Amino acid sequence: APMASELKCQCLQTEAAVIHPKRIANLELIPEGPHCGVREVIATMRDGGKVCLDPTAPWVKLIVNKILNSKVSVDQLA
Amino acid sequence: APMASELKCQCLQTEAAVIHPKRIANLELIPEGPHCGVREVIATMRDGGKVCLDPTAPWVKLIVNKILNSKVSVDQLA
Repeated sequence: APMASELKCQCLQTEAAVIHPKRIANLELIPEGPHCGVREVIATMRDGGKVCLDPTAPWVKLIVNKILNSKVSVDQLA
Repeated sequence: APMASELKCQCLQTEAAVIHPKRIANLELIPEGPHCGVREVIATMRDGGKVCLDPTAPWVKLIVNKILNSKVSVDQLA
């Protein structure tokens, strides 16, 4: 979806099709704020592309939890 | 915490103290991958600062869920 500038909402629409987590390099969670009246979830893909995801979609929540809950984190290594 | 370059782990340590969600402009969830063997959560603060958070900390998961589950999303507006 085309990206508006950072001072406005960045997502004009969201991707409905499920994306395989392995294709995602990172997820950006942006709460609503002065810049935009709605919260946004933007995935940066491993190929560099950016895709807006629907924060209410169950598969998006699954991917977020998968990232948060995967086995190892820096605190377990320290 | 000092930031390593994007091609390596970005977090050398994580912030233990709870941060008020209102101070956070966005959250970046980075799964482990070829660049870094551990998953990372990086908060960009409204004042522009960057802070590494512990993905396993309950308060971090609360903030993530708060952003995902707040009332309005672009799909409910469309």
